[in-house]
Amino acid sequence: MKALVYKGPGEKSWEEVPDPKIEQPTDVVVKMAATTICGTDLHILKGDVPEVEPGRILGHEGIGVITEIGSGVSQLAVGDRVIISCVSSCGRCSYCRKGIYSHCLDPEGMAGIGWIFGYMIDGAQAEYVRVPFAENSVYKVPDGMTDAEGILLSDILPTGFEIGVQYGHVNPGDVVAVVGSGPVGLAAVMTSRLYGPSKVIAIDLDDARLKRARDFGATDTVNSGDADWRDQVLGLTDGLGVDVAIEAVGLPGTFTMTTEIVRPGGNVANIGVHGKPVELKLNELWIKNIDISMGLVNTNTVGMLLKLVAEHKLPAEKFVTHEFGFDQMLEAYEVFGNAAEHDALKVLIH
Amino acid sequence: MKALVYKGPGEKSWEEVPDPKIEQPTDVVVKMAATTICGTDLHILKGDVPEVEPGRILGHEGIGVITEIGSGVSQLAVGDRVIISCVSSCGRCSYCRKGIYSHCLDPEGMAGIGWIFGYMIDGAQAEYVRVPFAENSVYKVPDGMTDAEGILLSDILPTGFEIGVQYGHVNPGDVVAVVGSGPVGLAAVMTSRLYGPSKVIAIDLDDARLKRARDFGATDTVNSGDADWRDQVLGLTDGLGVDVAIEAVGLPGTFTMTTEIVRPGGNVANIGVHGKPVELKLNELWIKNIDISMGLVNTNTVGMLLKLVAEHKLPAEKFVTHEFGFDQMLEAYEVFGNAAEHDALKVLIH
Amino acid sequence: MKALVYKGPGEKSWEEVPDPKIEQPTDVVVKMAATTICGTDLHILKGDVPEVEPGRILGHEGIGVITEIGSGVSQLAVGDRVIISCVSSCGRCSYCRKGIYSHCLDPEGMAGIGWIFGYMIDGAQAEYVRVPFAENSVYKVPDGMTDAEGILLSDILPTGFEIGVQYGHVNPGDVVAVVGSGPVGLAAVMTSRLYGPSKVIAIDLDDARLKRARDFGATDTVNSGDADWRDQVLGLTDGLGVDVAIEAVGLPGTFTMTTEIVRPGGNVANIGVHGKPVELKLNELWIKNIDISMGLVNTNTVGMLLKLVAEHKLPAEKFVTHEFGFDQMLEAYEVFGNAAEHDALKVLIH
Amino acid sequence: MKALVYKGPGEKSWEEVPDPKIEQPTDVVVKMAATTICGTDLHILKGDVPEVEPGRILGHEGIGVITEIGSGVSQLAVGDRVIISCVSSCGRCSYCRKGIYSHCLDPEGMAGIGWIFGYMIDGAQAEYVRVPFAENSVYKVPDGMTDAEGILLSDILPTGFEIGVQYGHVNPGDVVAVVGSGPVGLAAVMTSRLYGPSKVIAIDLDDARLKRARDFGATDTVNSGDADWRDQVLGLTDGLGVDVAIEAVGLPGTFTMTTEIVRPGGNVANIGVHGKPVELKLNELWIKNIDISMGLVNTNTVGMLLKLVAEHKLPAEKFVTHEFGFDQMLEAYEVFGNAAEHDALKVLIH
Repeated sequence: MKALVYKGPGEKSWEEVPDPKIEQPTDVVVKMAATTICGTDLHILKGDVPEVEPGRILGHEGIGVITEIGSGVSQLAVGDRVIISCVSSCGRCSYCRKGIYSHCLDPEGMAGIGWIFGYMIDGAQAEYVRVPFAENSVYKVPDGMTDAEGILLSDILPTGFEIGVQYGHVNPGDVVAVVGSGPVGLAAVMTSRLYGPSKVIAIDLDDARLKRARDFGATDTVNSGDADWRDQVLGLTDGLGVDVAIEAVGLPGTFTMTTEIVRPGGNVANIGVHGKPVELKLNELWIKNIDISMGLVNTNTVGMLLKLVAEHKLPAEKFVTHEFGFDQMLEAYEVFGNAAEHDALKVLIH
Repeated sequence: MKALVYKGPGEKSWEEVPDPKIEQPTDVVVKMAATTICGTDLHILKGDVPEVEPGRILGHEGIGVITEIGSGVSQLAVGDRVIISCVSSCGRCSYCRKGIYSHCLDPEGMAGIGWIFGYMIDGAQAEYVRVPFAENSVYKVPDGMTDAEGILLSDILPTGFEIGVQYGHVNPGDVVAVVGSGPVGLAAVMTSRLYGPSKVIAIDLDDARLKRARDFGATDTVNSGDADWRDQVLGLTDGLGVDVAIEAVGLPGTFTMTTEIVRPGGNVANIGVHGKPVELKLNELWIKNIDISMGLVNTNTVGMLLKLVAEHKLPAEKFVTHEFGFDQMLEAYEVFGNAAEHDALKVLIH
Repeated sequence: MKALVYKGPGEKSWEEVPDPKIEQPTDVVVKMAATTICGTDLHILKGDVPEVEPGRILGHEGIGVITEIGSGVSQLAVGDRVIISCVSSCGRCSYCRKGIYSHCLDPEGMAGIGWIFGYMIDGAQAEYVRVPFAENSVYKVPDGMTDAEGILLSDILPTGFEIGVQYGHVNPGDVVAVVGSGPVGLAAVMTSRLYGPSKVIAIDLDDARLKRARDFGATDTVNSGDADWRDQVLGLTDGLGVDVAIEAVGLPGTFTMTTEIVRPGGNVANIGVHGKPVELKLNELWIKNIDISMGLVNTNTVGMLLKLVAEHKLPAEKFVTHEFGFDQMLEAYEVFGNAAEHDALKVLIH
Repeated sequence: MKALVYKGPGEKSWEEVPDPKIEQPTDVVVKMAATTICGTDLHILKGDVPEVEPGRILGHEGIGVITEIGSGVSQLAVGDRVIISCVSSCGRCSYCRKGIYSHCLDPEGMAGIGWIFGYMIDGAQAEYVRVPFAENSVYKVPDGMTDAEGILLSDILPTGFEIGVQYGHVNPGDVVAVVGSGPVGLAAVMTSRLYGPSKVIAIDLDDARLKRARDFGATDTVNSGDADWRDQVLGLTDGLGVDVAIEAVGLPGTFTMTTEIVRPGGNVANIGVHGKPVELKLNELWIKNIDISMGLVNTNTVGMLLKLVAEHKLPAEKFVTHEFGFDQMLEAYEVFGNAAEHDALKVLIH
């Protein structure tokens, strides 16, 4: 089959590799109908994630059809159309039993936890992929759902919802601010509306992205390049700050922004993947009765989000701005890697 | 009356001052039976809290008898023996209605919020004190409770319980670590046992304090001066870290310790009053699904803790290591200010 | 002034009575701009609530302007336009401190708890009303809000939201069923949408009411007169039942309906005021891991709902189907008392 | 092997039957070291549970050693000493993913859900037992734990804790009442102490059982045969009732008792298995803001309770009052079936 292979820092190739096959009784093999690219893939390609070895097939998002099942698989069948979850989980360890699938203890000695596709094992930017612990790690696609809708359930929508909205404890009537209007920030904007907020404020440096944020459900926008951006945000509240501030960038500066706009008693929810430590002003914050959460998606809301997408209550398909064939994989990377220039959000490769 | 007056950085005096009197219909005046000193008072005296003006009577903890009530007070009477709460609250603003008394919006224009005694208004290290919003800010003392028991309810016990144990979400079976074995750390140790933990690990640099921590309910102790202190802590868990790590010191280093021992999916609860920013290693922590909480005590568990102390289910009196008369106020400060030398925890001035 | 006075079972009168005046320092007097009638008022008039004495002015909902304030009132002023909450609370007893205002311990010895207007003290169907504990019991009306919007905040909207939606633990993606499409049932339908449900099923015997329920946000309707009504409801789920079943009638039969359609692990939330015991089939239900809640509104979400109504996120004004002048009070009762005939929901008397 | 076989209403036999063997890849076979008898077994024997077919081996509690594993089992090995959970669960259906193992959707078409041992499939009162979905349904026994300790984890301790204490939302400082001092009631008494209650009141008709309840952690006892039993209970509170009332009998009268002693805002948690409907006085209770929960144990706290028992923080072994050999199975039934006469609680058959 063909696959996108990491060849070491800065190097990738769309090349012929051996087909995956069943290795464990709980595996399935999926023929991919569509996959996509995530910011994390770009990080790996830059060499920022040294534990990824050259030769690894990248990608952790996708939708496809099961072509083979392991001997221990009874609830899935060849021919099932499924969404691949970015997090794999055994379903029986102490973390899985608490629903913290992101920290599955991985009892079979498989390297890595939770997120393994395109990281510790071969991933989804390929014509076929092997899925371990399949019954806990794929979701059957409801009839009528398109690939463009379904692929958002692999990672982006549950990440924005679980790590942004749920960890941030958004409640009806809240004012929510989301710093960063990239895919995961927009997923937080869109899904925060499930909890009846009073306002959802999108904050970004790019007016084009802010304009798009309104289309995803933001009620207000603030350009953080403005000198008075913080006053603008506070002016959209009762003056005390927002109830929930969600970080969806992954830089020290954007994290600090969230702590500067959250009200006493409020919540900061970090979704961003950070490469550096940040300075936390505990000298000012210790007295504010705030809560700072962070984490990798558990994907335990995928089933629920899938239902709402199928019922057209969440317009997931809006995320897909560009489409490519599998043999245009390198072009897709080119567009996604220069997202601003191409006004790209998510690229669908099918 | 006599009172302990802040005279500017480094200066204090036990001197004659005018008696307080009712200023608002919701005030009461209390004749103090006992008061105590908090680490915060030492900070103010050093000049670390510049918003405190010279001339201010210090102290925010105490127990006494009501001698006068305002015209709007109907649920308290002259002669009632009451505990003064370190946090004042109006009971009717939007924060109070959510139980976040620490951020009472202070609608009458009184400077400061929540904590005002010995800070924005005259405090409790005096023979008499005026208590604003009295019906929301004092607690009647049950029969048979001693001053030494009751005074711990002003601040220490609810702070350790609410900000350490409750914000840290201690659950039955958890392994809890408390960094710092001073009064508030020991309050967290003692009250964490209300949630049936598996282990409570006290961590401190001082073996004498660790020995005392065991008397307050710690099941295990680790001296953080040991090079392998972290391994010792992890060795008391399943190797993945503690469920809840409570910071009760207020220094960057001790805060960092909590983030180094918390397990994925666990909680860090900061109680310490910090004077400097800390470095938060979001590059390592973003993926750990942890939660970091912080805040000023709300005192909304005082009624419950009072009941347990009265029933001798929480041995609050253990905190009092030294006793003084009111006219020995300066000696009390001397002992508390050199707590290590005197092996002092809380001093009772009565 | 003129007021609607209960004269004993079956008897009422719109008559001249003495103006109310300040009795306690925490009282205010409000000149009513608008009031309305509740089903409870009809029960009282029938004599079903014998503790209500003849001579009592009825009504517990209203909006108006403060004309007089007690000496202990500092956060309200003459001229403030306010909504009167159907529940009065002292803000300082142990129940109020937990936010359970409906069970305020009423420390001043006032007869009754929580709900007292038009029950234990004179109510709001009058030109003026005295409001005890005013600072905890009225809400300032935001600029631009109409009387028709504001009056729904006195009782109907918070009751539907708190006792139906919040006690029922509605979550994003849930299927919610509301039995009964009267005012409080429709309030539950409308406010359940704040938690992003998948479906909201209105169930009633009257097709006209079901038609209206769609206008209030129901996604589906089932006529409970149909022999297969239960199968229709289950057919709108995955076959296992609804996540949350809300009772908004107050009869044994409608309560039983909720227990027949709730799925294992789901919630039954009773809002209805019941006059008789019900049979609970614990022999079938003990194994279903369901939760049955009930209660009087606490009104602690009024501030939040007020904000959403002011922002036109909740179309509260839809509830008002008929309007009358104060001097048409008896006609208003005639219409509301025969609501089905007049297709009436809430009547606004102003 | 030998097993206790249900032969139809009123008939049982300890007889030779075929050894169980692996049927599914996720099965294991366990050689029983110890088993016990539950009240449910007596109900089945009386013919109260008609869906149990003659020929069924009874019992759903036990501890033993794995002798055989299915091809899909990787986390368990032959020789592992394990506790059998009374609830079986697949770990991958939508209910399992929410931790509601008691309502596992049983995707392989196995009859029954959650509880199946000694009900829909052959049970644990035998020399060997086949365990389906073994990796989600057994727990490895820590070194040093005795059979008498471990067997309580199969059902009694998690049932009392999850359905009584957790569903009842016991909190520090609460007054808890447990109606019924049989094994499951005593499990609720013992485990309620994990949440730091102020008082745990055991209520029963039998003074001998009440005496034993004190040994299990009850702080107070009330004999419900006393005419003033309710006043006695209220007298142990502030007069308003208990915070949490736990039903551990399963009769209409004992259920009604819990609703008569719960305070406004409190919780009723039903553990009892009921054979008849009960009358619920909604006419009195609708206004009380109480919550009534019920359900079958999910066993998702077994791991935690196991840890506390291993650390001797829960003296589980106290439940075992009588011991028998496997060949004395019928005598064990005789003693357990006449528990009052023999002062029996749990019988250990090993």
